[in-house]
Amino acid sequence: MGLKFPKDFVFGFSEAGFQFEMGVPGSEDPNTDWWVWVHDPENIVAGIVSGDFPENGPGYWNLYRQDHDTADRLGMDGARIGIEWSRVFPKPTFDVRVSTEVDGDGNTVYVDVGEKALEELDRIANREAVTRYREILSDWKNRGKLLIVNLYHWPLPLWIHNPLKVRSLGPDRAPSGWLDRRIVVEFAKYAAYIAWKLGDLPDLWSTMNEPSVIYSLGYISIRSGFPPGYISTEAAFKAAKHLTEAHARAYDMVKKYSRKPVGIIYATTVVEPLTPEHRDAAETAYSMQNFEFLDSIKFGRSRLVGWRKDLEERLDYIGVNYYTRQVVVSSKTLLGWSVVSGYGFACQPGGLSAAGRPCSEFGWEVYPEGISVALERFWERYRLPLIVTENGIADAMDRYRSRYIVSHLAQIHRAIEKGVDVRGYLHWALVDNYEWAQGFKMKFGLNYVDLNTKKRYLRPSALVFREIAKGKEVIDELLHLAEV
Amino acid sequence: MGLKFPKDFVFGFSEAGFQFEMGVPGSEDPNTDWWVWVHDPENIVAGIVSGDFPENGPGYWNLYRQDHDTADRLGMDGARIGIEWSRVFPKPTFDVRVSTEVDGDGNTVYVDVGEKALEELDRIANREAVTRYREILSDWKNRGKLLIVNLYHWPLPLWIHNPLKVRSLGPDRAPSGWLDRRIVVEFAKYAAYIAWKLGDLPDLWSTMNEPSVIYSLGYISIRSGFPPGYISTEAAFKAAKHLTEAHARAYDMVKKYSRKPVGIIYATTVVEPLTPEHRDAAETAYSMQNFEFLDSIKFGRSRLVGWRKDLEERLDYIGVNYYTRQVVVSSKTLLGWSVVSGYGFACQPGGLSAAGRPCSEFGWEVYPEGISVALERFWERYRLPLIVTENGIADAMDRYRSRYIVSHLAQIHRAIEKGVDVRGYLHWALVDNYEWAQGFKMKFGLNYVDLNTKKRYLRPSALVFREIAKGKEVIDELLHLAEV
Amino acid sequence: MGLKFPKDFVFGFSEAGFQFEMGVPGSEDPNTDWWVWVHDPENIVAGIVSGDFPENGPGYWNLYRQDHDTADRLGMDGARIGIEWSRVFPKPTFDVRVSTEVDGDGNTVYVDVGEKALEELDRIANREAVTRYREILSDWKNRGKLLIVNLYHWPLPLWIHNPLKVRSLGPDRAPSGWLDRRIVVEFAKYAAYIAWKLGDLPDLWSTMNEPSVIYSLGYISIRSGFPPGYISTEAAFKAAKHLTEAHARAYDMVKKYSRKPVGIIYATTVVEPLTPEHRDAAETAYSMQNFEFLDSIKFGRSRLVGWRKDLEERLDYIGVNYYTRQVVVSSKTLLGWSVVSGYGFACQPGGLSAAGRPCSEFGWEVYPEGISVALERFWERYRLPLIVTENGIADAMDRYRSRYIVSHLAQIHRAIEKGVDVRGYLHWALVDNYEWAQGFKMKFGLNYVDLNTKKRYLRPSALVFREIAKGKEVIDELLHLAEV
Amino acid sequence: MGLKFPKDFVFGFSEAGFQFEMGVPGSEDPNTDWWVWVHDPENIVAGIVSGDFPENGPGYWNLYRQDHDTADRLGMDGARIGIEWSRVFPKPTFDVRVSTEVDGDGNTVYVDVGEKALEELDRIANREAVTRYREILSDWKNRGKLLIVNLYHWPLPLWIHNPLKVRSLGPDRAPSGWLDRRIVVEFAKYAAYIAWKLGDLPDLWSTMNEPSVIYSLGYISIRSGFPPGYISTEAAFKAAKHLTEAHARAYDMVKKYSRKPVGIIYATTVVEPLTPEHRDAAETAYSMQNFEFLDSIKFGRSRLVGWRKDLEERLDYIGVNYYTRQVVVSSKTLLGWSVVSGYGFACQPGGLSAAGRPCSEFGWEVYPEGISVALERFWERYRLPLIVTENGIADAMDRYRSRYIVSHLAQIHRAIEKGVDVRGYLHWALVDNYEWAQGFKMKFGLNYVDLNTKKRYLRPSALVFREIAKGKEVIDELLHLAEV
Repeated sequence: MGLKFPKDFVFGFSEAGFQFEMGVPGSEDPNTDWWVWVHDPENIVAGIVSGDFPENGPGYWNLYRQDHDTADRLGMDGARIGIEWSRVFPKPTFDVRVSTEVDGDGNTVYVDVGEKALEELDRIANREAVTRYREILSDWKNRGKLLIVNLYHWPLPLWIHNPLKVRSLGPDRAPSGWLDRRIVVEFAKYAAYIAWKLGDLPDLWSTMNEPSVIYSLGYISIRSGFPPGYISTEAAFKAAKHLTEAHARAYDMVKKYSRKPVGIIYATTVVEPLTPEHRDAAETAYSMQNFEFLDSIKFGRSRLVGWRKDLEERLDYIGVNYYTRQVVVSSKTLLGWSVVSGYGFACQPGGLSAAGRPCSEFGWEVYPEGISVALERFWERYRLPLIVTENGIADAMDRYRSRYIVSHLAQIHRAIEKGVDVRGYLHWALVDNYEWAQGFKMKFGLNYVDLNTKKRYLRPSALVFREIAKGKEVIDELLHLAEV
Repeated sequence: MGLKFPKDFVFGFSEAGFQFEMGVPGSEDPNTDWWVWVHDPENIVAGIVSGDFPENGPGYWNLYRQDHDTADRLGMDGARIGIEWSRVFPKPTFDVRVSTEVDGDGNTVYVDVGEKALEELDRIANREAVTRYREILSDWKNRGKLLIVNLYHWPLPLWIHNPLKVRSLGPDRAPSGWLDRRIVVEFAKYAAYIAWKLGDLPDLWSTMNEPSVIYSLGYISIRSGFPPGYISTEAAFKAAKHLTEAHARAYDMVKKYSRKPVGIIYATTVVEPLTPEHRDAAETAYSMQNFEFLDSIKFGRSRLVGWRKDLEERLDYIGVNYYTRQVVVSSKTLLGWSVVSGYGFACQPGGLSAAGRPCSEFGWEVYPEGISVALERFWERYRLPLIVTENGIADAMDRYRSRYIVSHLAQIHRAIEKGVDVRGYLHWALVDNYEWAQGFKMKFGLNYVDLNTKKRYLRPSALVFREIAKGKEVIDELLHLAEV
Repeated sequence: MGLKFPKDFVFGFSEAGFQFEMGVPGSEDPNTDWWVWVHDPENIVAGIVSGDFPENGPGYWNLYRQDHDTADRLGMDGARIGIEWSRVFPKPTFDVRVSTEVDGDGNTVYVDVGEKALEELDRIANREAVTRYREILSDWKNRGKLLIVNLYHWPLPLWIHNPLKVRSLGPDRAPSGWLDRRIVVEFAKYAAYIAWKLGDLPDLWSTMNEPSVIYSLGYISIRSGFPPGYISTEAAFKAAKHLTEAHARAYDMVKKYSRKPVGIIYATTVVEPLTPEHRDAAETAYSMQNFEFLDSIKFGRSRLVGWRKDLEERLDYIGVNYYTRQVVVSSKTLLGWSVVSGYGFACQPGGLSAAGRPCSEFGWEVYPEGISVALERFWERYRLPLIVTENGIADAMDRYRSRYIVSHLAQIHRAIEKGVDVRGYLHWALVDNYEWAQGFKMKFGLNYVDLNTKKRYLRPSALVFREIAKGKEVIDELLHLAEV
Repeated sequence: MGLKFPKDFVFGFSEAGFQFEMGVPGSEDPNTDWWVWVHDPENIVAGIVSGDFPENGPGYWNLYRQDHDTADRLGMDGARIGIEWSRVFPKPTFDVRVSTEVDGDGNTVYVDVGEKALEELDRIANREAVTRYREILSDWKNRGKLLIVNLYHWPLPLWIHNPLKVRSLGPDRAPSGWLDRRIVVEFAKYAAYIAWKLGDLPDLWSTMNEPSVIYSLGYISIRSGFPPGYISTEAAFKAAKHLTEAHARAYDMVKKYSRKPVGIIYATTVVEPLTPEHRDAAETAYSMQNFEFLDSIKFGRSRLVGWRKDLEERLDYIGVNYYTRQVVVSSKTLLGWSVVSGYGFACQPGGLSAAGRPCSEFGWEVYPEGISVALERFWERYRLPLIVTENGIADAMDRYRSRYIVSHLAQIHRAIEKGVDVRGYLHWALVDNYEWAQGFKMKFGLNYVDLNTKKRYLRPSALVFREIAKGKEVIDELLHLAEV
């Protein structure tokens, strides 16, 4: 009567460099846009960022073995681990020559990074960092676990993006990251290099994490505290286009040097209308936020990129990140729809949503029904394998996490029963992490981290996770937790 | 670095008849004061009781094996189980002759229930009920576990107490329970009979649960919804005196027929002054609520009973029930002190206390520091072995229970380290129960009970309890939960 | 465009002895059930009453001129002023012989207090108290204002009701107030005496205030803290019957000696169903709480009294007290309906109702729509003149009072427009008062009273009241306050 | 015993163009930075501005007579009325030649706008707008009231500041407002022109409103939603310097053509340390926020401007705007101090502050003690006449406004008693207004405005204000409202 998951269904965790690596002296990586952004005194005074610093984080760069031990004890058999571009290439790679083709519209339709270029890159690269990544990935892999390696999780090397300069000089006179066409080729170089150096280890690759969040929070919705905080729809579109190209060109290179499946990790936004009359607006918002980008790299066709052969069929699986829903009404704004406060991401931290659901300390409504919608709609449209690559809750006192986990697993199980090909569930997060502009306030870990001693402690929900992961089943006696 | 408990330290649960037994058809016991009290339509309309009925409860009378299985799986090796007087003697026992001695002040200083009386009682008793109790106790005992049997946990047979008649006719024209001197002898008969019939099973006996609650909530503080809700300080004192005598006379009889240690289960009220100038008032309140009764049956001397040889040394161990503290100020009221709202038992349900502590759904502040005070002060005064016989939290969603358990265990450990002889920790409760005037609203179970199906479900804290009980240790990785 | 009221529409205040008179040394009246009830240490410790004492009240007994001045300045031209039975007759009047007739069912169907009896009563009466009442009433009357005198507003002389003895001895061995048939005759004597002594002063008489509250809060719903707190449906019915008889016999005597119109002041309970399927239950509750008593004294026919000629047509007008609504569902309880928490009287103090309306510090929802319902239904059924004799809000900081007043006046205006004969609006209260079991916590005054100095201060709403009362109009610019 | 104010103490209101003028068709002024800023779709989607539009405002441009009538009825005898630069000069004035002197550091130390230039300006000016302003000012002045005219209250003509272009191109390639040195001269031209055209009307002039808010909210603290939202300490300093120069040069020109006293309106920030050890940090913050700017234009000496003869003694009185305090701790940030959440401006809207004070719907703590501090410290340092030119509360339901007004007046009275020269109290606001980035959500009016019909309604506090203003006294009976 419990909920049994397939024998090869993976239970695990997700990790990202900037949010977990730093913490032990010597682990700092100051060469990124995010580093300068969260350290900028003016950003701190203005309340754009928290004033917490990532160098006081959990310290995975040094303590990865301990975290892998913990994951093991909790019955985890899979992980997604991130690599930081800036650690591998702290200095520019512009001068390394590679074949590229740009079409008449300025689209980068082809990049090839040959062996010679790779050797040149190898001279520029920080080899110590590469070695450390090999150790980290091997430590996990050698335990007989599934390994997904993700190449990009938001921080960019400072040489390609300096958000403080974008602010003071405008984007056309500063290293402007995703607004600069050149980033496509540089990202392909980096991807090729990693595949060449570490390609024996992963079972699966992901090129990047949540591209839509980068262009929307960076250029449309400034309250997020994301760099560069430059409000411009035009810029958002440009960044989005470059992200699709970067993905496609990186896909080509990873495949060339590794052959393992390559996917992308996507932040789903399950949109619901406030009332039935807003159904069209909700559908528009759903499509815009969930399908535009993936259509571009699966079908090579979308409103975002038009029709581009060079982008199509660059997707072997989808990593699905899901936290909560979004409720909208149709409106006369630019987008044609507006988010309704009191639901989904737009709730009072620690309160109840307008629908009476508990909300996390981030102000995110607990809404497990959304994850099966997300999975079903991706499956229906793309017929690609799916892995839940992030799901979790900011909940320092662990008041809701057990319920959060079980209720979402119950919805995932429901999707599987309906025939959706879901391969695994990677929880965010194994241990407490640095949560971007919010700093350390948001506690997502199954394990609490004492940031002073770096010691890890089990939250009660970790025991619930263990109970489930070890048996690959939500047993009957835990099923009551599926109700929110 | 974890907190290790002695090897023979017992982890277990506490159970009481009226709150757990009923639920399966055929298990109803309508022959008690509490039954008529919670079913009285006028009490329900007046909001004195909840309108929930105990016959819809968890059903331990029939499902005890299943609950013992669950306890076993959670690593429990001890239990306190209650017997209901009214089930054993649904009809009056007044006519059974026994030797008694009443002194010039009307004190019942001696009772002896001989074999002949026991046989007569056996004819009056409901033997099916006795057989069922043997089955229940044996089922637990046969698993090799520690068994404490408690003889009285609040409901009285209707033939000795009818609270509705007390209300309409006054206590001198109705069966008035603890206000009627005859109850002392009848209780001794009942105790003797149980010791005679079931004396082979328990490791320890308790005569009664929380006597001070009976006389204070029944006669002083009417908001509790306790029968008979008859406000009279004089009556409270009379009830208190009869309870001491009943204990002492029952102690004698149980010892006569069983020889196992006999104790009492006591509700501690750890009193603290709001500010230092109220220290004297707090000390008076502490003493009055925690020591008066126990002094009477240990030393035979107290303000409550004066000096009575026939009461002294009737106590082999103390069962300590602890939930939270009480904060007082000195005042010009009858008692000389008043309880301050916002602390301890007097908080907003589900809110924060005035000290910023979380409060249970009962409005009880989480205050673990109090339990070590309670244990230390009992030890210092009585030098008797102590067992924590109740500790737990009304917390339907299990938001605080893990933290509640660990923080209280940490304080118990602290007391043990200081030399206090604490022998075990019995959690209240294994499964959700019927909570007197509050009905089913207060959820104390490590296991959630679906009252429709009677199915039990694990709350996350049950896994935390299991982790601790199985190793008899709060491991290092759980120690962060000791902070409230 | 404003709301104009008829020229002779009265704006004023209501006052009651126990709640306002005491405060200045020498003004104490300890000869009542309420006095002993609120001073009883056991009641205080039990939390049944507040621990505040009426002798620390606003002191109208001495400061009435000042309050009349204030009322005058606020544009008030009417008042309802109470007389205390216990002040006039601190000692029993049983021995004064009068003609009475009791029928076979024990109903007191006739009482006549002749001149001789009045002279005898005059010898027993406390003449100083009578003189003071003449001064108080004259001071108001001499300003050319409308005067309503109310004979009974809850406290009973201790010789006819001792609630502490009812509790300890049962009602048949203690002075049991409304449970004792003799009260009917004694009340008639008191009414006759007042009419005989002070009958030249009032424009209108009222026999009693809110009889239904007395029998329901005293005998059914114990949480109210009303004496005697004796839970018994049978007792409630007996008290209700005696109250109808007391009214009718008093009506006869007041008419005999004064000839002015005699009415009653009634607490309306505007009942609404939670959802349409509970409409029948709501209608039953409406009828039971609003019509049973008044039907008895208007038509001489009701479920309460059967068919009694001696009660009919004893009502010249109705004083309507309105505070909020009651929302019910049908239920299997004794009454057939249950009150739904979160609406009307059953809200969180200072919060919002389940319908999103603000709630007073008493936990009473602001629901002005109900007052027009109350007025319309009384008018439709009885075709008697109506006066709003109480309406107001416990609101220490005056956050809602202006809005409360205007919104209720707008509803009253609406009823008048529909043809209902409403003659006036008497606000509860002119100054802060002693609110029974709640003590001084509930602040109903247009004027704040510093209880230490007895000084009165204007709340902002007093200026709004003045603006309206002086023009007998809610001007256009204030109409936005009619929205809650 | 009441608080009497001097006979010539002025009670009145403050008004500002952008926040009040628009509302009636034809009154729109789209030629400003603020207009494009609040209409920018990207700003709306990003949540930087409310989405409310000023053209739906109260409509003072057309309805000023009605508002003056209301003010009159409320006993007001003074007002501060704003003029909009952009209405008078919708097109650039750069080409009008005037004498100027810029020193070696780029400081504009002298500007003279001669008659010829004035005539040229007159040809460029929108004369209809000037005529309308004459009508508005005359209507007030002709009632025999005190008139303060303020020249600048935040919106800049679009030809001198386009914040959308500053964002996309950087400030050096866009009209950058206060970052462009040329603004000093253009502002002087505008000031000279107004003094020349309307100089017969005002009793007092103010050059500008709250200069420190412009440079801090525009360039330091981005959450405010102020244009251009360009985070740069360097830019903030530059803007501050240009504002001092603009004031001084405008001062010179107004004096030249009008001779009436010229002051400035300043936003006070009364800083308090969280605990005594933060006293130095608090003093630094106090000085930086309250004295730097005023020192510059009074003493010609400050850390902001160094030592500049051309700025000194350009201040005849100070307009003091006060709303609440700021609580700080010393910190390692750029400024040396950080604002503590939960006090002053940094509170939960509609909640209680960390000090238990009520907070407005803007999240501003009610803290009247601060206003006497502000007045005393200004007086002590500058010995100039003071006028409270803004004080009020966002409080749609008028729950706190009466108390807010009386408590602040009590503190002002206290300052006067101590010898501070306070000349008047101008409430913000007479009617509800457009509150910048917050739009219409914040309701500051003594009068509620129905934005659909433009009808004004009295809030209860308006009657309290009237009571005080008419007698120039807070009478005894209102003094309880001085306690928060």
